[in-house]
Order: sequence, then structure tokens, then C-alpha cells
Amino acid sequence: MRFHTRKWVKPEDLNPNGTLFGGRLLAWIDEEAALYTTIQLENSKVVTKYMSEINFMSSAQQGDIVEIGIGVKKFGKTSLTIHSEVRNKMTRETILTVDNIVMVNLGEDGKPTPHGKTKIEFVKDRLSNA
Amino acid sequence: MRFHTRKWVKPEDLNPNGTLFGGRLLAWIDEEAALYTTIQLENSKVVTKYMSEINFMSSAQQGDIVEIGIGVKKFGKTSLTIHSEVRNKMTRETILTVDNIVMVNLGEDGKPTPHGKTKIEFVKDRLSNA
Amino acid sequence: MRFHTRKWVKPEDLNPNGTLFGGRLLAWIDEEAALYTTIQLENSKVVTKYMSEINFMSSAQQGDIVEIGIGVKKFGKTSLTIHSEVRNKMTRETILTVDNIVMVNLGEDGKPTPHGKTKIEFVKDRLSNA
Amino acid sequence: MRFHTRKWVKPEDLNPNGTLFGGRLLAWIDEEAALYTTIQLENSKVVTKYMSEINFMSSAQQGDIVEIGIGVKKFGKTSLTIHSEVRNKMTRETILTVDNIVMVNLGEDGKPTPHGKTKIEFVKDRLSNA
Amino acid sequence: MRFHTRKWVKPEDLNPNGTLFGGRLLAWIDEEAALYTTIQLENSKVVTKYMSEINFMSSAQQGDIVEIGIGVKKFGKTSLTIHSEVRNKMTRETILTVDNIVMVNLGEDGKPTPHGKTKIEFVKDRLSNA
Amino acid sequence: MRFHTRKWVKPEDLNPNGTLFGGRLLAWIDEEAALYTTIQLENSKVVTKYMSEINFMSSAQQGDIVEIGIGVKKFGKTSLTIHSEVRNKMTRETILTVDNIVMVNLGEDGKPTPHGKTKIEFVKDRLSNA
Repeated sequence: MRFHTRKWVKPEDLNPNGTLFGGRLLAWIDEEAALYTTIQLENSKVVTKYMSEINFMSSAQQGDIVEIGIGVKKFGKTSLTIHSEVRNKMTRETILTVDNIVMVNLGEDGKPTPHGKTKIEFVKDRLSNA
Repeated sequence: MRFHTRKWVKPEDLNPNGTLFGGRLLAWIDEEAALYTTIQLENSKVVTKYMSEINFMSSAQQGDIVEIGIGVKKFGKTSLTIHSEVRNKMTRETILTVDNIVMVNLGEDGKPTPHGKTKIEFVKDRLSNA
Repeated sequence: MRFHTRKWVKPEDLNPNGTLFGGRLLAWIDEEAALYTTIQLENSKVVTKYMSEINFMSSAQQGDIVEIGIGVKKFGKTSLTIHSEVRNKMTRETILTVDNIVMVNLGEDGKPTPHGKTKIEFVKDRLSNA
Repeated sequence: MRFHTRKWVKPEDLNPNGTLFGGRLLAWIDEEAALYTTIQLENSKVVTKYMSEINFMSSAQQGDIVEIGIGVKKFGKTSLTIHSEVRNKMTRETILTVDNIVMVNLGEDGKPTPHGKTKIEFVKDRLSNA
Repeated sequence: MRFHTRKWVKPEDLNPNGTLFGGRLLAWIDEEAALYTTIQLENSKVVTKYMSEINFMSSAQQGDIVEIGIGVKKFGKTSLTIHSEVRNKMTRETILTVDNIVMVNLGEDGKPTPHGKTKIEFVKDRLSNA
Repeated sequence: MRFHTRKWVKPEDLNPNGTLFGGRLLAWIDEEAALYTTIQLENSKVVTKYMSEINFMSSAQQGDIVEIGIGVKKFGKTSLTIHSEVRNKMTRETILTVDNIVMVNLGEDGKPTPHGKTKIEFVKDRLSNA
């Protein structure tokens, strides 16, 4: 799993108890899942179809830095299944994990369409094939 | 299940494909779960502990109205388990359902604490006991 | 009057004095008025034309839950006049009332157009006529 | 009346019809009223107590510039009554006017307290008295 | 230099240290530069091309009022160069200055296009020429 | 330079011309600078003191993915100087570069204080010294 995106927990991200608002965290994961998939499938028309259960193991405070990791589970024909872990960079605790997030590749007509990918590609590999 | 909160899908709620951003929807559900629990447990210090799997069945467009329903599954000693359904008020389709959301009641020290509730109460019932 | 939408007062909703920012509250009412009207008139092209005077009677704190009620005053030919009350679900106080909000029904051309409605309808009634 | 603050209408400020969301506009006016009062009363603990009726005369499109004017109506003992006009800088149309906005001066205890001001002061006048 | 727009520092504008988030401030300046240019060039298709170095001299606290000033440096053929100063209205300190911000005038095709302006115009002057 | 954080350009991030709002981009860079510094200096009380000139070389469209890179230039006694590059992951173009961003390490009293760091550390190195 690779951890890219980091978020700085600001006052606007807190719930009334003064800890990181869970809903904000879910929005961050969903955005990360979408952009990771967009990069892998080279298509910006992707949607979230399914998320498996989510355990909130720890939280974060104002000023903490949160890091969102994504890894690939499976390339389907029109889908990509990924998993995610969110960590607190300050306390080094896992905040939550999601085992399966199914992202679907859409065509121009907004319907699921084959993406033709079967494994993770990095930009440098794509360029070296060019 | 009772449907209270309604949201109007505005441009700021869209993903780049022009449909309702899934992350925004998850944030709305989490907020609704927290405030429903706060009202039932008469304690504003509550946190989301667990969400079961989520199937995104349909979406919503700009200008659509989305309605968030919450129902109770079980009163635990320090927790409340609820379920949720989100509907599109315009198309009358179900957008998603979540079967189990476990909310935990916290004490002043931020630790789980018994809430002493065993069934749904409405404000009028509370007042009539006073 | 029916109270549907509820809001959880989060840090991002506060003014610098630490109470609910009045401007946020006005935005919430305007959104609720628009979506209530959209549902009644079965048209998502509606705009706010007029709001009568607003008395801010009490406020809300971080963590409070605010409930927005809307009731119908009058069905005009191209308009719908509603009234609104906002309550603090925690303190049970009225935060504010607005006696008249005039919403206008627009046609495709963005101009006022008759909506053909004369009374409140509920979705189940609409379906039973089908 | 003096027009200070200007806003650029961005996609995040639109309602689903693609025009400036009325609720956003009301939030902008309330913020401007609060900061104008803070400057005049030299106290940042001020709250909105009352707004007289609001007529929405025209709207604004994405990319338009909106200008918010505030003028003083009356200095009360613990209050300041102002009026506001919002103009569209592109079309030169008035978007709305509010004849009376009553702002209240609060003390440390959060209760109305005399502000001791009787007329508009400009910063340069204050300094020249020093 | 003329100071128009004012901002009230709210909890949503703070960094985790509880002072005004620098990124929010930069966003405010960029918006003010764009709308000032739009008014001068009578064209809403303008973009920021360059900002010279920025010194953060002081900050602002929650409840402070921040004032953004813009002045013109030079009219280019397809550009307008402006400078900006941001002041804290409460402490009367300068928060930051930017000596040169180059804004570019775009045509319908999104490419730089001559704007035909050579000096600052005020709306009343434009009208008196009509 | 290492590229961590990625952003998905959503409707709420656009200027009225429909391209990525420059002010939003500046806010993203400032946040990334702050959290990178927080991790390196192991102190969440850091502020932006200076940014060198910024050239906006290209932009991004809705649905594009933007990647923010940070590298270290110099460890000062109480400061850390970094540089930044923002790239468009879709078009592979550089959006902008900033050569010097000076971040200052603050003590409990909010004043610059020595941070005691002289080189980049990775979390695994810190742990292996323990």
C-alpha cells in the first residue's frame, strides 16, 4: 500500500467534540479512492459502487496530520477493487481500514464499460512503452 | 424508519462527473447518525465506531433533493446501533442503505460510558414524564 | 408545521463569538425553503422572492442540534408563501421565526410561471392517484 | 452608504438553477453587518438581533461581482441599527435592500451592554484624537 | 491604494494554531485581484499569471477584521499589474504586501487578448462618457 | 522532491471561468508546506513566513488530478526552507513552482524557537535510533 495524500486537521474538520469529524474522513477516503482509480484506469469518469465495513479504531486531534493509503485488491473487467488504510502521522496509530472499495469505470454514456487494465501501472512505465 | 433531514444537491456537492459526490453523501449520513444519537441518548458526546458495508445503488443530480432516514436496531449498554437509508426525493429511488452503524456514548473523559436508555423516546414522552 | 431537516452545529458553523453564525442559519433556512417548495410544486426551478422580518430570539452552541420547520401559508398562482421556525433541539427554545417567505415557480425561460397547485400534497397521495 | 466588500460569484456560490444562491447572499450580508458593527463599536462581541423584510429584486450569474453596502440608521444605547444594499457590479442592478438590521453590543458576560458611541467614526479621526 | 473587501476571521478560517490560516489569506487575495481586474478591464475572463514574493509580517486572530487593498502598477497590452496590501483592521498592523500581481485578460478562446485600457476608470466616469 | 498529496479538481474548486481557482491552489500549497514542516520538525506549531515569486504556467480542468511536491532547500536554526512544484497528473504539465517557502518553528509562547534539526528524517530512521 502506498500512502500519498496527507491532510492537516484544521478547525473546519472537527466535530463538536473537538476530534476529527468522521464524515469528513469518509469524504477524504472517497476522494482518494476516486483519484487513485482515475490514475490507474486513465479515465476520470469513475464512481464508487461499494465500500465494505469500516471500523473507526482511533481518531485525530486538531493539528494532527492524517495520511491516506490505497492499495489494489483486484482488477475486474469494468471495475477496480482497492483497499484503504488511514493513519495518524503524529500518533502513528491506524485510524481506520476499509478492506474493499469497488470503483466502476464508466463510458461516455455513464454506463459501466471495460477498462482494459490488468495490473498497476506507474507513469514511468507508461512512458517507457511509448 | 423516519426521514428527517433533506439536502438540496448544489454545485458544491458534485463530483467532477456532475453527479452527487459520494464522499459528501457519506459525510451527510455520518452527521445524521451523530445527531440522531445525540437526541436519543441526550448526550452530545457521541462518536461513530462502526459502519457496515455500503452499496451505492443510484445517484443524484444537481437540483435533486436527497432525504436521509435513520432507524434504531439495538440499544447496547454504551452504544446505539442504527441503520440508514438515503433516498432521492425526485426519482424516488434508494441511493444507498447501511444496515448497521454503531454509535458510542462517551463520558466527560472521552471514554465509553453507559447511557441508561433502552428504547426510543420522543420529546413529548419525556416531557409528559416530567 | 413540520420539522424535517436537522443540523449539527459544528466548529465551521460558528461566528467568532463561538455561537451559531447567523448567516449560516439564514442560508440553512433559504435552502430548506427552496427544497420544500421544489417538493410541493414538483419543479426544481424555484427562487426566493421575499422574506419578512426576522427576529433572532436565541442562539445555539457548538454541539447543539437545530431543527428547521416549514409550513404553508398560501398557494398563489405562480408563487408559494411559507413560514418557518427554527428551534434548538437541545434547549427547546425557538431560535427564530419568519412569518412569510415567498417562493416563485419558474419556467424553462427563467420567468414566473403558474404551478397549478392549490394545496399541500404528500407523496403517498400522489401515488394513490396514479 | 459605503460599499466595501466585494464578492466574486464562483461555482460554489450557485443554487442548482445556476444563479447566486440566496442563502449565500444572506450569509454575506450578515457577515458584513457584523464586521461593520465591530469596527464602529470597537468591540468584536456583537450579534444580529433583527433583520427587516428582504426583497430579492434581481440575481447574479457565475462570474458576476457583487458589492455589499452598509449605512447607519441609528445609534441606540446597546445597539446599532444599519441598512444594507447589495448591488451587482456587472449589471449595475440592485439585488436586494434591507432597511433595518439591528446589531447588539455584548459584554464579556454575553449580555447587551452600552457601547457609548453616538456617531460614525473613521479610524483617522480616532487617531487624531489620540 | 483602495481598501474595499473586508473579511471577518471565523473559526473555519483558522489553522490548527488558532491564527488565520495563510492559505485562506492567499485565496482571499487572489479572489480580490481577479475581481478588481474584472472591474477595470470590463471582462470577467481574467487569470492570475504571476505573484511576486510574499512576506507574512503579522497574523490575525479569530474575530479580527482583515482588509484587502489593491492598487494599479501598470497597464500592459494584454495584462494588468497590480499590488496588494492586507491589513488587520483591529491591530492596524500590515499582515502582508505583494508588490506585483500580473493578471492576464483572456478572449473567448481562452488566450491572452488586448484589453484596450490604459488607465483606471471609475464607474461614474464611464457613465459620464456615455 | 517527493510528491505526496493529490487533489481531485471538483466544481467547488473552480473559478468562474471553469478552470482551477488560483486561490484554492495557493491554499493547497500552504497547507502542504505546513504539514511537511510539521512532520520534519516534529512540531505542529509552525507558520509560513515567506513565499518567493510564483509563476502560474498552466492550469487544470474539472476532473483533473493535481499533485503537490515539496523538497527541502535549507535547515535554518528556527526555520526550514522548502520549495514546491505542482503538477497536473492528467496533462503531465507543471502548473507552478515556488523556489523558496520559509517556514518558522514556534515555541509554546508563539515565538520562533530552535528546532534542533539539520537534515531530512524519515519515520523509519527515527524508529531505528530508538
